[in-house]
Amino acid sequence: MSRFLSARFAALQAYTPGEQPQDMAYTKLNTNESPYPPSPGVFAALSSSEIARLQLYPDPEGKRLRAKLAARYGVSPQNVLLANGSDEILNFAFMAFCDSATPVIFPDISYGFYPVYARLYGLSYKTAPLKEDFTIDPKHYGGNDATVVLANPNAPTGIALSLEQIEAILKANPDHIVLVDEAYVDFGAQSALPLLGRYDNLLIAQTFSKSRSLAGARLGFALASEDVIADLDTIRYSTNPYNLNRLTLLAGEAAVEDAAYYEANAQTIIQTRAYTAAALRELGFALTNSKANFLFASHPALPGGALYRRLKELGVLVRHFGNPRIQNYVRITVGTQGQMDTLLACVRRILTEQ
Amino acid sequence: MSRFLSARFAALQAYTPGEQPQDMAYTKLNTNESPYPPSPGVFAALSSSEIARLQLYPDPEGKRLRAKLAARYGVSPQNVLLANGSDEILNFAFMAFCDSATPVIFPDISYGFYPVYARLYGLSYKTAPLKEDFTIDPKHYGGNDATVVLANPNAPTGIALSLEQIEAILKANPDHIVLVDEAYVDFGAQSALPLLGRYDNLLIAQTFSKSRSLAGARLGFALASEDVIADLDTIRYSTNPYNLNRLTLLAGEAAVEDAAYYEANAQTIIQTRAYTAAALRELGFALTNSKANFLFASHPALPGGALYRRLKELGVLVRHFGNPRIQNYVRITVGTQGQMDTLLACVRRILTEQ
Repeated sequence: MSRFLSARFAALQAYTPGEQPQDMAYTKLNTNESPYPPSPGVFAALSSSEIARLQLYPDPEGKRLRAKLAARYGVSPQNVLLANGSDEILNFAFMAFCDSATPVIFPDISYGFYPVYARLYGLSYKTAPLKEDFTIDPKHYGGNDATVVLANPNAPTGIALSLEQIEAILKANPDHIVLVDEAYVDFGAQSALPLLGRYDNLLIAQTFSKSRSLAGARLGFALASEDVIADLDTIRYSTNPYNLNRLTLLAGEAAVEDAAYYEANAQTIIQTRAYTAAALRELGFALTNSKANFLFASHPALPGGALYRRLKELGVLVRHFGNPRIQNYVRITVGTQGQMDTLLACVRRILTEQ
Repeated sequence: MSRFLSARFAALQAYTPGEQPQDMAYTKLNTNESPYPPSPGVFAALSSSEIARLQLYPDPEGKRLRAKLAARYGVSPQNVLLANGSDEILNFAFMAFCDSATPVIFPDISYGFYPVYARLYGLSYKTAPLKEDFTIDPKHYGGNDATVVLANPNAPTGIALSLEQIEAILKANPDHIVLVDEAYVDFGAQSALPLLGRYDNLLIAQTFSKSRSLAGARLGFALASEDVIADLDTIRYSTNPYNLNRLTLLAGEAAVEDAAYYEANAQTIIQTRAYTAAALRELGFALTNSKANFLFASHPALPGGALYRRLKELGVLVRHFGNPRIQNYVRITVGTQGQMDTLLACVRRILTEQ
């Protein structure tokens, strides 16, 4: 820390992303990337004639991509905000819709970035405990006079809320934003999209990083009422209006066009998830009912930290979290069938070592 | 504005970027882009085998690009922070080094984003007037008990401070950050880089958007002491750790390797600037001594707003600012010789219309 840093950040603890070793030496199942490359349209879109235009600024309004997303989701372009990954949506939303008068509430076990944003902006925040089975209790998310932030499916449990449960939470918070972080929604959960026209307090965040194989391109988007989108856009234009590069906008457009490719990949991942979950259960693991592209698993004979470390020694990276409630779990990204067989072989070997 | 927006942003006025028409129908001299495409190495770097890895997150530490920049500038990688354009560096710096106890000071005529950041973060800020000839008076930037923000060369005047003047300002502010925004430094001004080891309050922001022909890729970087960089990195990891996409990191690495190409382009732009300035002076324009890739020009017979509008009608986009002190000026990006001849032909035509 320098002697110039504002005192309000003196104790700030930043977010710790999953390990990103750059040597490709691991079976990488720790940051929920798709195991499949981008679609053919993305390759075609990032042509040398487009690289030859990289000296020009991108369209700060991202008009063409917003129009394509709007058509895809049956909304107007004014209901769509583009961002540099859905983390940037979260960042803008914590700035815009929380302050000293409006705190924020989220589950005790969820995406680890939520408390980081809350601390960054000096917000008071409250966490509501997941039930014993790691499901969210919608009853906790009403009457708090607070902005509500929920991941659906939740991370790192993968457990989804139903559309009815989301609607109940929207109804219980008529005067506060309910931010539904749908980063993993394309793997079997229900999007809150059908509720968009009826609840002006609904803000949906989605990403191209998971089901659309573009984690490396950094592209997320928000869906909400025109007014809520306009608020987020004011923050965007007050921090970094050129937040998306030209190639990312083009890749995004191509990815929306190639929807069938990504939907087929999501179906394959759902099947691989079922295969892997069944195999892990046979080996004695307990698993949540994940609707995401990851599994959340614990074994009575293998503490989570030890399993994570031993898998890493064997060349397989999974994610382990320090939070005491989940320290006996690991989160395993669903990769290809081949990657999962590698994982399962390593797990079998580790179990024989006990 | 939605009814959910924090009251502190109720009056927020966002930054207005220059027009970015997407139809390529204009001679575009309004946002200081390079007229030259990226170097051959950038084309080679953005290969289909790299597109085939876009499903993977980028290296959040940008290790390889930071190492290359460090080698290029004779510093350590710990002195380098990468960002999504230099606007993001400014955003992080206003957050990190200003607060209710530490206001900020910048010139009354400078990059229009500085007051936007100040208002976004609720900072008290002071502007120091440029002298009558639009030069910065270093005497204004001491004893304010404030973070100092200066563009060098300044925008939109193009006028540069000398290294001695920057050093005097650093000495006058031993307990405050002096942020030197060097977006345009490669076109003939002196970088503050030689002062880096001696002043721990120096923070330099640079960009790949101007001299390195990568405005569309969104890449900026900061150079400062290890501690100051660590502070900015804490903010980055608390907002959006994956702020740079994979292809941008690769393009940046290639651009650092191809330094000779970009230095030759900068020399050409400097020559074209001299050619254009001489021609405009012959036509009766007054110009500042610009060390940037733009000219700042006024004509006694042509109000700036009228000149901007008439040039646009004729297919040439330049930038006009509403600030009363400079409303008789236009800012003209230095493009190719051919683009400048188009501009000059239009200006001659407009002058005959008077």
